Amino acid sequence: MRQLIRQYATVQTVTQIGAFPLNSTIYLLIQPTGRIHLGNYLGAVRNWKDLAQESSSQDIPSNCIFGTADLHAITVFKEPTELKKFRYETLASLLSAGLDPTKCILYHQLSVPEHSQLSWIFTCLTNIGSLNRMTQWKLKAHLNDSGSLFDEEVGKAKAGLLCYPVLQAADVLLYKATHVPVGDDQSQHLELTRGIATTFNHSYKTNMFPLPKTLLTPTKKILSLRNPDKKMSKSDPDQNSCIYVNEQPEAIAKKIRKATTDSIQGGIYYDPDGRPGVSNLINIVSGITRKSIDDTVKDMEWMTNHKQLKDYVTEVIVEELKPRRHLFDELMTDKAYLEQIANEGSRKAREIATTNMDQINKLIGFD
Amino acid sequence: MRQLIRQYATVQTVTQIGAFPLNSTIYLLIQPTGRIHLGNYLGAVRNWKDLAQESSSQDIPSNCIFGTADLHAITVFKEPTELKKFRYETLASLLSAGLDPTKCILYHQLSVPEHSQLSWIFTCLTNIGSLNRMTQWKLKAHLNDSGSLFDEEVGKAKAGLLCYPVLQAADVLLYKATHVPVGDDQSQHLELTRGIATTFNHSYKTNMFPLPKTLLTPTKKILSLRNPDKKMSKSDPDQNSCIYVNEQPEAIAKKIRKATTDSIQGGIYYDPDGRPGVSNLINIVSGITRKSIDDTVKDMEWMTNHKQLKDYVTEVIVEELKPRRHLFDELMTDKAYLEQIANEGSRKAREIATTNMDQINKLIGFD
Repeated sequence: MRQLIRQYATVQTVTQIGAFPLNSTIYLLIQPTGRIHLGNYLGAVRNWKDLAQESSSQDIPSNCIFGTADLHAITVFKEPTELKKFRYETLASLLSAGLDPTKCILYHQLSVPEHSQLSWIFTCLTNIGSLNRMTQWKLKAHLNDSGSLFDEEVGKAKAGLLCYPVLQAADVLLYKATHVPVGDDQSQHLELTRGIATTFNHSYKTNMFPLPKTLLTPTKKILSLRNPDKKMSKSDPDQNSCIYVNEQPEAIAKKIRKATTDSIQGGIYYDPDGRPGVSNLINIVSGITRKSIDDTVKDMEWMTNHKQLKDYVTEVIVEELKPRRHLFDELMTDKAYLEQIANEGSRKAREIATTNMDQINKLIGFD
Repeated sequence: MRQLIRQYATVQTVTQIGAFPLNSTIYLLIQPTGRIHLGNYLGAVRNWKDLAQESSSQDIPSNCIFGTADLHAITVFKEPTELKKFRYETLASLLSAGLDPTKCILYHQLSVPEHSQLSWIFTCLTNIGSLNRMTQWKLKAHLNDSGSLFDEEVGKAKAGLLCYPVLQAADVLLYKATHVPVGDDQSQHLELTRGIATTFNHSYKTNMFPLPKTLLTPTKKILSLRNPDKKMSKSDPDQNSCIYVNEQPEAIAKKIRKATTDSIQGGIYYDPDGRPGVSNLINIVSGITRKSIDDTVKDMEWMTNHKQLKDYVTEVIVEELKPRRHLFDELMTDKAYLEQIANEGSRKAREIATTNMDQINKLIGFD
């Protein structure tokens, strides 16, 4: 056991994009919150597209698996009509953002029942104490450090909120994923996933599960157009703060016109503390053009006022999103095609899932 | 909401065997602990056989569904080779005890993945406080009333121990069961099941789930042959205390010979407090012959000593178990046939499960 712990402690848990070995499996589920905005696009989804592109062009292709996190969506009650709509929109958003279903597996988590089955198996191997230590759980259940599950408030929290990190572990390990492109807020859950994989391997005397690594991807943190103290967010009550990937050009122009900047006269320069609004706009352009901040600012040397900046930013965004909007609108009017893609993805995902689940069942004595 | 609670509070939660309405669904999972003993047989399994018999002979037949509780078996770690063996033996035991697969559905829980899926859905609807109140959880996690989940000891308890009553609710409700033949120790979990059904129906504005009732069946509590203070149990270190359904006649004779009685001379009479050993033997005969205790004792009027009683008891047990032992041995040597029965049961169970799950998914927005 001591040896296992040492192994576990010394495993390298982070990989940079471009550095993952041949024949890896990259896995990620996306909350089905509907159409995505510029922040999701530049901060995450375009990276996944790059990952799928890069991994499929390797000599020995790696597997990229992306899905909608259907079972996670209900840890908090969702209006059924909205959830249904959002599941379609999320898939359409991912496709329109450039994820190519011939280069990755794109599916609905719900259509592979082995997720829940493996989650139950892991629930029987996971200490309550480990789950209770999760920062996300404490935040979501409004638990303070001295709080107890016997408190009336915490007792009202749903068991799903406590247990969903176990489902996440099942999601990742069901496909024997080696790399997971997650942000900081999820790194603790991926640590738990490695712990569960280690416990299973140890309990059933097997090397079934690899210990998946965090895959660091270059991210752009895009801020609210109206209040650059906050991240761009779909749930912002001021909808002028947020540009959707399927936004019309006129709406984009209007929202950028209304974007908060500052009263500093003269040329445009990057200063996130002193000029947060302007810097956010520069950052958006840098993200879209894939140029460094310095090169982006150099392209703006000729500007003498905010209007020129805003017109330029609008043009760059409209140009980038045009094909995405067309594709999104097309997909949303052809649900049969969307379903066909999801079904094909589910078929491929389930093939891997059932093969691995058969092995897992044998190890447990379920055969 | 108030109206729903009132409805829920006044629902009749207990039904006597023979009184369940036409077209009910009776559901029960059995822990896969391997071959069964006389206590299991007279206390439970023969009742299920009667239930299946009775319900299939109704004008509108009721559905009887029995399965092995595979997913529950792993809430505490089981040796894989033992678990595998026990799953076979349990099925063979049920069949040899007289459960007729043409009159009920007999299957392995594991083969219907919708159990885990529905369990996850319910986990998202169930308060941690409700689970934390369960007596079985407190017992199994060694939780005292003032204990907290933050305690080191309780933190080591597996999350499966806290959450398995939710899986039980999913087991029962997946088949829209109306009646569950459980003992006292499970009535609190069935109460929780009704609570979960009510919450789901309310949250998703539906009448999807009936509120399942406890089905009272006449039970015989058979005690240890060696220590009539305890129930007959497979885990008793003194294996002379326990007779298995597939026991050889010589072994039965030997175990009854060694059964603890008393030093009271003369005739045989029933007195559980004063003559616990003798009364246990009378009770076994009464169970097997389905005669009342009074009639059973009347049949023994001619006896003048313990040896006569023991010879008689041996004869009755050997006669009752003979066909069971033959069938059990036959089934255990023909695993292909056992698997065929389990597969046929799973096919029927899954047909019901998927139909109901499709409806559940639609209600949630998972379609």
